[in-house]
Amino acid sequence: MAEAVTIGDSEFDRDTAVALREPGVYDAELSAGWTIIRAVNGGYLLALLGRALGEALPHPDPLAVSAHYLTASQPGPAVIRTQTVRSGRTMSTGQASLFQRDEDGGEVERIRVLATYGDLDRLPDDVRTSAKPPAIPPREHCFGPSDGPAPIPGSSAITDRLDIKLDPATLGWALGAPSGKGEMRAWFGLADGRDPDPLSLLLAVDALPPTAFELGLEGWTPTVELTVHIRCRPAPGPLRVSITTRNLAGGFLEEDADVWDSADRLVAQSRQLAMAPRG
Amino acid sequence: MAEAVTIGDSEFDRDTAVALREPGVYDAELSAGWTIIRAVNGGYLLALLGRALGEALPHPDPLAVSAHYLTASQPGPAVIRTQTVRSGRTMSTGQASLFQRDEDGGEVERIRVLATYGDLDRLPDDVRTSAKPPAIPPREHCFGPSDGPAPIPGSSAITDRLDIKLDPATLGWALGAPSGKGEMRAWFGLADGRDPDPLSLLLAVDALPPTAFELGLEGWTPTVELTVHIRCRPAPGPLRVSITTRNLAGGFLEEDADVWDSADRLVAQSRQLAMAPRG
Repeated sequence: MAEAVTIGDSEFDRDTAVALREPGVYDAELSAGWTIIRAVNGGYLLALLGRALGEALPHPDPLAVSAHYLTASQPGPAVIRTQTVRSGRTMSTGQASLFQRDEDGGEVERIRVLATYGDLDRLPDDVRTSAKPPAIPPREHCFGPSDGPAPIPGSSAITDRLDIKLDPATLGWALGAPSGKGEMRAWFGLADGRDPDPLSLLLAVDALPPTAFELGLEGWTPTVELTVHIRCRPAPGPLRVSITTRNLAGGFLEEDADVWDSADRLVAQSRQLAMAPRG
Repeated sequence: MAEAVTIGDSEFDRDTAVALREPGVYDAELSAGWTIIRAVNGGYLLALLGRALGEALPHPDPLAVSAHYLTASQPGPAVIRTQTVRSGRTMSTGQASLFQRDEDGGEVERIRVLATYGDLDRLPDDVRTSAKPPAIPPREHCFGPSDGPAPIPGSSAITDRLDIKLDPATLGWALGAPSGKGEMRAWFGLADGRDPDPLSLLLAVDALPPTAFELGLEGWTPTVELTVHIRCRPAPGPLRVSITTRNLAGGFLEEDADVWDSADRLVAQSRQLAMAPRG
């Protein structure tokens, strides 16, 4: 791990930067550094759209972000068009779409997002959480792509940007012995040591290997829809991410993610509908 | 219960009817029959938007519907404007907004929805579900608004349209002794005996008393965002709905709903972010 960088000055911040072209319209560059095989990671894309909406809307923080994935994004230029749907006193709602050019120069929509924003620092302090942090071994007993014993298949550019250490109990797939349970748990951080913030939580919920691997299914698990609720500004330090699939049926599966911060708070919850691998 | 009516010819179908005004634009009438206190039920509104999208899109069935609630709807006229975002071979994505007129005659947006549609009858048969149907007593041992021993507070017009029988284990709130657990379970049907279909599942996920009641909190729990995944066409007969809240914090709570059909299949999953009652 490199010397820690600060929020605002990191790989993640540079690669999710957006440049105002005209009111509500932002230019972006999808980095090849956040690809899995050839596809751009869906959580990275969500963070990019989330940053644009944070600039466009009167409130700074994503509270609820719902994304429907339309076509596969490619590394390279993109434009994000935002719309303010409603501006309230404590919350505002916006819409954003990410477009890229196809071979003929026409605009193709990649993702469309509806999002409600607010101010996480102004929420009341009451906490009545029955959820428990995931039972995950200490970080030094978990394994990342570089730890062996066998290299984790499917490694891609994004693995260099992330600091993921998987719970050995959910690592059977990498050794040819998937558990058969739809569970994946890991310690999560950014490789350059940048601390988490609400935008990086949008990445964290979609950055682990798919639960389908532990169900013995290999191959692509394209996201159809992903909704993230940001419940609390995360404390500095590593996150723990727990992903669960309870229902694989009809060619689809859901992935529910819980993200816990170093202060033992449930900082994000997400659910996605994805297409099950054929394998 | 009245003599059973058929899908397409029921209170629910009449009250969620939409009339094509021009391509993509539908007139509707929000029925006062689906109100809780004075507010129009959010699941009923979602079913209305879902019906309009089912007519506008090339695929018939909602697979994933994400709604952001903007302003409180009122019984009376409404217009739904839809847009086809993407048309694929097996799935299509659309957007819809419901508008009403304010006192000055201006259009006010009530809800905006992004939705991915497909064809539930063309999904493969594979089922690998680890989720278990909710542990709920037989219907005759559960209680509805008319069963006493105490009348259930908060009863409203919608209770006449629904056939809800709550698990006694989640009914403590009605007797002044909430369990403190964020759980609500019930048998769910439509009062006129109409069988479930994908549209009525959009209603079912948001029709039970809020889990906040069992957490000892009374009052309004307005939905900020609600996403529903329809996983299977439901079999005829009563549904079982289980709602869980694990994280009440910062003035918000999530409600996760599972809906099971009479064939013991998990037919719908939803999650919503709602504002916690102040009580």
